[in-house]
Amino acid sequence: MKKLINDPSDYVDEMLDGMVAAYPDRLRRLEGTKVLVRADGPVEGKVAVVSGGGSGHEPTHAGFIGDGMLDGAASGEVFTSPTANELDEMVQAADAGEGVLCVVKNYEGDVMNFDTAAEMADMEGVEVEQVVVNDDVAVEDSLYTSGRRGVAGTIFVHKVAGAKAAEGGSLEEVKEVAEKAIDNVRTMGMALTSCITPEKGEETFDLGEDEIELGIGIHGEPGTERTDLMSADEVAEHLTTNVLDDLEVEDGEEVVVMVNGMGGTPLSELFIVNRKVQEIVSDRGLDVWDTWVGDYMTSLDMEGCSVTVLRVDDELKELLEASVDTPALKR
Amino acid sequence: MKKLINDPSDYVDEMLDGMVAAYPDRLRRLEGTKVLVRADGPVEGKVAVVSGGGSGHEPTHAGFIGDGMLDGAASGEVFTSPTANELDEMVQAADAGEGVLCVVKNYEGDVMNFDTAAEMADMEGVEVEQVVVNDDVAVEDSLYTSGRRGVAGTIFVHKVAGAKAAEGGSLEEVKEVAEKAIDNVRTMGMALTSCITPEKGEETFDLGEDEIELGIGIHGEPGTERTDLMSADEVAEHLTTNVLDDLEVEDGEEVVVMVNGMGGTPLSELFIVNRKVQEIVSDRGLDVWDTWVGDYMTSLDMEGCSVTVLRVDDELKELLEASVDTPALKR
Repeated sequence: MKKLINDPSDYVDEMLDGMVAAYPDRLRRLEGTKVLVRADGPVEGKVAVVSGGGSGHEPTHAGFIGDGMLDGAASGEVFTSPTANELDEMVQAADAGEGVLCVVKNYEGDVMNFDTAAEMADMEGVEVEQVVVNDDVAVEDSLYTSGRRGVAGTIFVHKVAGAKAAEGGSLEEVKEVAEKAIDNVRTMGMALTSCITPEKGEETFDLGEDEIELGIGIHGEPGTERTDLMSADEVAEHLTTNVLDDLEVEDGEEVVVMVNGMGGTPLSELFIVNRKVQEIVSDRGLDVWDTWVGDYMTSLDMEGCSVTVLRVDDELKELLEASVDTPALKR
Repeated sequence: MKKLINDPSDYVDEMLDGMVAAYPDRLRRLEGTKVLVRADGPVEGKVAVVSGGGSGHEPTHAGFIGDGMLDGAASGEVFTSPTANELDEMVQAADAGEGVLCVVKNYEGDVMNFDTAAEMADMEGVEVEQVVVNDDVAVEDSLYTSGRRGVAGTIFVHKVAGAKAAEGGSLEEVKEVAEKAIDNVRTMGMALTSCITPEKGEETFDLGEDEIELGIGIHGEPGTERTDLMSADEVAEHLTTNVLDDLEVEDGEEVVVMVNGMGGTPLSELFIVNRKVQEIVSDRGLDVWDTWVGDYMTSLDMEGCSVTVLRVDDELKELLEASVDTPALKR
């Protein structure tokens, strides 16, 4: 294993400290936890939006803390849910008295611990609501969850919920737009290589030099199908077609496209994939309102990508283009 | 070789088309060339700032085209200089009558072709000035150039020159701030793995499983020293110390720090490196005014990082924090 790390057991701790060291005016670590919150929070008069999950998906989650997006993010160890206690601390620290929306990806550990944390915070008088993102069309049930997994589409949910909260929406309104985004977003991913977790130091699944894995998740779990190496265009075709079919798009609808890197893929290759994705989406008669290309929801050093399509209406477009100021996303 | 590509010979073409497809309102490709320019350019009344070089460094160069930064970027094939003809086309397309500053990285091919292009454009009545970035402290002369190579520090030069041009600076003034940034910026890089170029399909240098390469450039050329695998803290110490010593920093000076990924390194590892870089810089009595962590100047899929330090004064700080709106950098 070759990584820029020190002791593997310090990986998450040192990464979080390195983030705060990079953005000391933006991020603050809750002492004794793996929770980061807005340095200037809680923001008076605003509903808080928080998220969290295992580490290894950077810039998700903490990279999206800031004006117009998240108020806090809890990290577990690599690919491991944060504890209910830490999630509760985050919820309480983020709350400004207007309530807290938790954006949860559909993994059993995450859902269970966020549920427990919500109950704990509720007992302290914090109003908590929760949405569960399940955008991955690749699998119905997986090693990690029943129902579909939450993957890169989560970023769009953070964005619209954060924007609605920033414009003064009530907890109920913030939850509603998050659910609207969840209902209209689908993703599918693939890998050229497995990721290597710092603690284990080896691949979580084996792929031959001429093989790729389709339908991978973001936790080093293998995908749904192993096939021969495909060209970028074939990969784009496979992922995009599955996503669009599942989303049941109709001619003339407006969409946002995300081509997301899994952590070890150069940006140039994501653009090559995007070229074909755009062609396919246009051929379906869809109108691409906006495109995001880059590393948003990664899986350590995995090489590969995912394609996400979000169907948008005027409300979602307004929230997506609203001003945002975080380490990983500004507009 | 496992990459998300189609025919390797289409790599650059398809990447550029994929960029324009992602940002059609921002980028325009000059027909029959590998030059991208601002879709809304040339901008009346403004000095143009352009750059260029081989492909394989994405988001450099074209990702920094936009308000407050570059007006155009020319790409060669992977790690190959753009032709003088294409550079000339770029300069002429970017010029709004106020002159053009070319930001060139110090490689013989780039310098020679930019020189020729400047002469060609000059004959067409375009006023052209040029600055050469040479921030790499690792080598005095290399395979690719005499004198020091231009690497990640180039991004800061783009930023300050672009900001000065946006605020209405004259060609001479824009050149002056670019030179001030060049005089005050130093970088050193290292690699855990070599990159693999699409055409060759194999590593450009061999590294054992327990070896790393210090002092690498951004074109797959080997570094200055091969050593045993180091911890992230040791890497940070080695790179940062070399950079600070060369920059001859003095107690109490203000600096901007960049921890740049080489393309295949997860963001989490860059933050782990940043944690130690900040500690070292602070221990030297320096005041870190701003920090940039991410992939700015890459070398295809190479795993590794570089550390850049820029000494800043009030003028540079004002230009660095000026508004910028490009695909890869917004503030």
